[in-house]
Amino acid sequence: MKKSNQEINALRAKKNQTLRPVSSGLEGILYSPLKVLDKGFVRVVDYMGNDASIVQAARVSYGKGTKKKSEDEGLIRYLLRHRHTTPFEMCEIKIHVKLPIFIARQWIRHRTASINEYSARYSILEDEFYIPKKNHLAQQSLTNKQGRGNELDEVTSNKVLKILKEDSFRCYKNYTWMLNEKNSKEFQKERASLSRELARINLTLNTYTQWYWKIDLHNFMHFVSLRADSHSQFEIREYGKLMLKILSKWTPLTYKAFLSYRLNSTELSMEAIEVIKKMIAGKKVTKSKSNLSNREWKELESLFL
Amino acid sequence: MKKSNQEINALRAKKNQTLRPVSSGLEGILYSPLKVLDKGFVRVVDYMGNDASIVQAARVSYGKGTKKKSEDEGLIRYLLRHRHTTPFEMCEIKIHVKLPIFIARQWIRHRTASINEYSARYSILEDEFYIPKKNHLAQQSLTNKQGRGNELDEVTSNKVLKILKEDSFRCYKNYTWMLNEKNSKEFQKERASLSRELARINLTLNTYTQWYWKIDLHNFMHFVSLRADSHSQFEIREYGKLMLKILSKWTPLTYKAFLSYRLNSTELSMEAIEVIKKMIAGKKVTKSKSNLSNREWKELESLFL
Amino acid sequence: MKKSNQEINALRAKKNQTLRPVSSGLEGILYSPLKVLDKGFVRVVDYMGNDASIVQAARVSYGKGTKKKSEDEGLIRYLLRHRHTTPFEMCEIKIHVKLPIFIARQWIRHRTASINEYSARYSILEDEFYIPKKNHLAQQSLTNKQGRGNELDEVTSNKVLKILKEDSFRCYKNYTWMLNEKNSKEFQKERASLSRELARINLTLNTYTQWYWKIDLHNFMHFVSLRADSHSQFEIREYGKLMLKILSKWTPLTYKAFLSYRLNSTELSMEAIEVIKKMIAGKKVTKSKSNLSNREWKELESLFL
Amino acid sequence: MKKSNQEINALRAKKNQTLRPVSSGLEGILYSPLKVLDKGFVRVVDYMGNDASIVQAARVSYGKGTKKKSEDEGLIRYLLRHRHTTPFEMCEIKIHVKLPIFIARQWIRHRTASINEYSARYSILEDEFYIPKKNHLAQQSLTNKQGRGNELDEVTSNKVLKILKEDSFRCYKNYTWMLNEKNSKEFQKERASLSRELARINLTLNTYTQWYWKIDLHNFMHFVSLRADSHSQFEIREYGKLMLKILSKWTPLTYKAFLSYRLNSTELSMEAIEVIKKMIAGKKVTKSKSNLSNREWKELESLFL
Repeated sequence: MKKSNQEINALRAKKNQTLRPVSSGLEGILYSPLKVLDKGFVRVVDYMGNDASIVQAARVSYGKGTKKKSEDEGLIRYLLRHRHTTPFEMCEIKIHVKLPIFIARQWIRHRTASINEYSARYSILEDEFYIPKKNHLAQQSLTNKQGRGNELDEVTSNKVLKILKEDSFRCYKNYTWMLNEKNSKEFQKERASLSRELARINLTLNTYTQWYWKIDLHNFMHFVSLRADSHSQFEIREYGKLMLKILSKWTPLTYKAFLSYRLNSTELSMEAIEVIKKMIAGKKVTKSKSNLSNREWKELESLFL
Repeated sequence: MKKSNQEINALRAKKNQTLRPVSSGLEGILYSPLKVLDKGFVRVVDYMGNDASIVQAARVSYGKGTKKKSEDEGLIRYLLRHRHTTPFEMCEIKIHVKLPIFIARQWIRHRTASINEYSARYSILEDEFYIPKKNHLAQQSLTNKQGRGNELDEVTSNKVLKILKEDSFRCYKNYTWMLNEKNSKEFQKERASLSRELARINLTLNTYTQWYWKIDLHNFMHFVSLRADSHSQFEIREYGKLMLKILSKWTPLTYKAFLSYRLNSTELSMEAIEVIKKMIAGKKVTKSKSNLSNREWKELESLFL
Repeated sequence: MKKSNQEINALRAKKNQTLRPVSSGLEGILYSPLKVLDKGFVRVVDYMGNDASIVQAARVSYGKGTKKKSEDEGLIRYLLRHRHTTPFEMCEIKIHVKLPIFIARQWIRHRTASINEYSARYSILEDEFYIPKKNHLAQQSLTNKQGRGNELDEVTSNKVLKILKEDSFRCYKNYTWMLNEKNSKEFQKERASLSRELARINLTLNTYTQWYWKIDLHNFMHFVSLRADSHSQFEIREYGKLMLKILSKWTPLTYKAFLSYRLNSTELSMEAIEVIKKMIAGKKVTKSKSNLSNREWKELESLFL
Repeated sequence: MKKSNQEINALRAKKNQTLRPVSSGLEGILYSPLKVLDKGFVRVVDYMGNDASIVQAARVSYGKGTKKKSEDEGLIRYLLRHRHTTPFEMCEIKIHVKLPIFIARQWIRHRTASINEYSARYSILEDEFYIPKKNHLAQQSLTNKQGRGNELDEVTSNKVLKILKEDSFRCYKNYTWMLNEKNSKEFQKERASLSRELARINLTLNTYTQWYWKIDLHNFMHFVSLRADSHSQFEIREYGKLMLKILSKWTPLTYKAFLSYRLNSTELSMEAIEVIKKMIAGKKVTKSKSNLSNREWKELESLFL
């Protein structure tokens, strides 16, 4: 880790000249790891474009697009609202992420991105595992099959943490035993090493991995809107929130429009529009006459009443 | 498993009429699981198109395309050879796969496919793990960092198998303990259940999962050419081979062209072309004068000499 | 055209047996052209899956998914509402379309589809051009830079139609003159033929072309939601409407959910939610205090007041 | 055009500081138009990454990857040869292109890119058309249905050029007549303007359009390998050649590997491998005994004999 810090410092020390557009917000955090969960991080390693690039692409212009910031903002809000997605595809970001494998499995469902993952066929994984904080150990939700309910009690929590730690480390210890690496202290000359691609199958899903992830701004916002959302699993939501922060630094105007039209917006169904209309007209509407499902009714209530 | 057999039999018993083109080869195996590894399977559950559909799309025709099978074959070979990919994209296949998680992680790198995976946030995984056969327990290759070498010796093999089995089952047992499911025999009323999305992080990477995988014929062939190849890990190669068999049943003409122009073809670099030219002209070429790397030279030798 | 009718009748006359799921609605129109604009058509030539396939994929089940239609409908509505897109990606449709080139240029912006277009490098285009009906000749909108306003007056309309017809046909006549095809009546032995790939550059953008278009149900709905929308150009909207009809025949349950949650739904921004809240609470809200742009305010008014 | 030159000069005059990796080759041509055909151009407007970024991504490293240029080169060659595509996806380029519509229609078939095109629904196209040089007016090939043969004779050439020019300009003149723009000299107050989205359908396919095109390095190379190839139409090949030049400036090591393993490489079919083997062994092989088609045999001859 010390060595990686040195490498990061070396990169941050060396300024280059460029004719390209720059995002001053991102330059400020480039290469530096933002910590997340117990051992994860997110660090921006490269990017292309800024708010002005979106305007320029939308206009197919020779120069910088509009002259005034207020015009830029208006156009960006218009584009995002009307789902003109291609101008946002013109910006790119490349991020180095350290994350547990079970999160990596959710993350990779977003197909419109490029990924280079640390290869456990080729290299050896480190002994790092995600162990939740005690107050994040939630019960199975009784109402939502894929959600969390209340916190666990103290006794069960302690047992769960013990299990998670012991199983992770035991599996890892056996992993290294099977690898029997020449350079390790425990190397036993008299027995053969199991191939890396096989030994790794003994590791648990909370083992940390790393990857480079590259994605355009449009798909980045889509990722954030899904993963910073309350329906997503707590652990990936923590990454989603960091991405939201990165968005605010990269393209501040787009970030503000994103809050209005994506993150804090809502979609009303045909039936819900009718309900709202009646309510505005001062009529009383009950769930039974609303044509909405229980769940839709509840969401409507919590949003508007 | 009995229940799933009944469901499969019910599906195979019910014939429907359709005006669509049919692949008689695929109809013969539709819904039936083809076994792979110790507990995995592959079963085709739906498809669209056959060899004639490729011809029809390439011709943008009203009817069936060409009349003669020989013309169809000629055109298909031409299209595949010249990498006219879109006519092959016109056929689709949907496959139900049961596979260990570490293979699923390789598989999903193919982004041009649709996947619905069994959700361990929502449901509970079964106690099924991939345990390699003894003769597949290979040493780490000494020459290829991501490959396998010779078989392990008897003693080490036995220890490795013992580890893999014990760790899988212990982790699984702790998984069910943390889940503390109401319907299970071991249910303990007095303590809370950990949410499923958290409990699963204790499982090992050789645990089996399942998914529906849908892909077009062009990308299916790309998958097969990479995964039935000797560079891919043995375990996913076993799936790749089954896919090759499915290809032969689905579109027999395309299958034959695929053998010629993809699976058993080779790419010669600019430098290798020069070497071959000299060899054909009867000149002696040595590695040192070939401009080829060691590895390229070896591959050339093994292919042509 | 007579010949193509014969081919279509031949295809519709031949029933095949299959074990695959069937959409009876689509079987009823398979291969038959649905007319659109003056000379265009849309004809479904193949498909995969039906409403039940979506349920089956979402459940990753061995058999047919749920037993009851009402459960299927509930799940489909849930999936569409919560933008679980992958189960809808499990169904595919293949459509033969005849359309003017300027529409083809809008259409192809949807990248998640496979296309085989009639090649004017290889073959000769027919003398068919889109000539709008007189009542579709609209003025440039004064308020919307990319929209239409009122109808043109009679005199200008007639002149416009004359121009469109004459220019299309003159360009086409010169196209065939340059092609100088051996089999044509006007063939002149003494002069050479210009290559097809060059001659075609003289044609106008209203010339009809044809293609095979294949897309999954999720992306099909996305296409329909954009192209059946009032913001899209009238000519492509006519195709969009036919696609909506095809959707209703293919997957009736999905179609109904699509009307509720996509086609007739609306997205409320963070700011608009606040406005609606106040209105429901009986407070008076004016545009100036709404934080909405002119356009957003107008849309809100037309929807809810 | 003067104005656009000023804008370009302004962009080239303003240097920014960045911590990001830089490609000195691309900085040298950033924003400047490279001319192509009679009125087209290609100008790089932004990029992300350089040769070192590929290495860094492949290694999933904290710092710059390898230290020595020779190691970088070896790894890049290895990655390209073995079709490890994701590290190349980590670099991006954004290019402003001016091109005739018939080329735009070929270009856009590459789906893995982002495009913002100048909108003729919203704005007015200029009176610029692609008119081939006389020596590029080729006859239809007699052997290849989608190719060009010899040059046309002088008399026919002159007639063809006259047609192309006259038809383009007449259609354009009628386009502006129908538009009847307020700001134009020919504006007639007494008659209405046809909407832009309709008027444009009268234009010919050689009319120039413009777009912003953004693509990653892997897909960029795929584009170049197809479009700089002799099978592609001359006009798009001219653009392909400029892209090859851009590649050489952007990532010189990747460029060299690309020449070896893509642009100047060849694929040998299973059958062709057998032929080559025999030839190397000094045996005489005739076409009839080769199992190759006429075309394949010819290509083999021209490459190796």
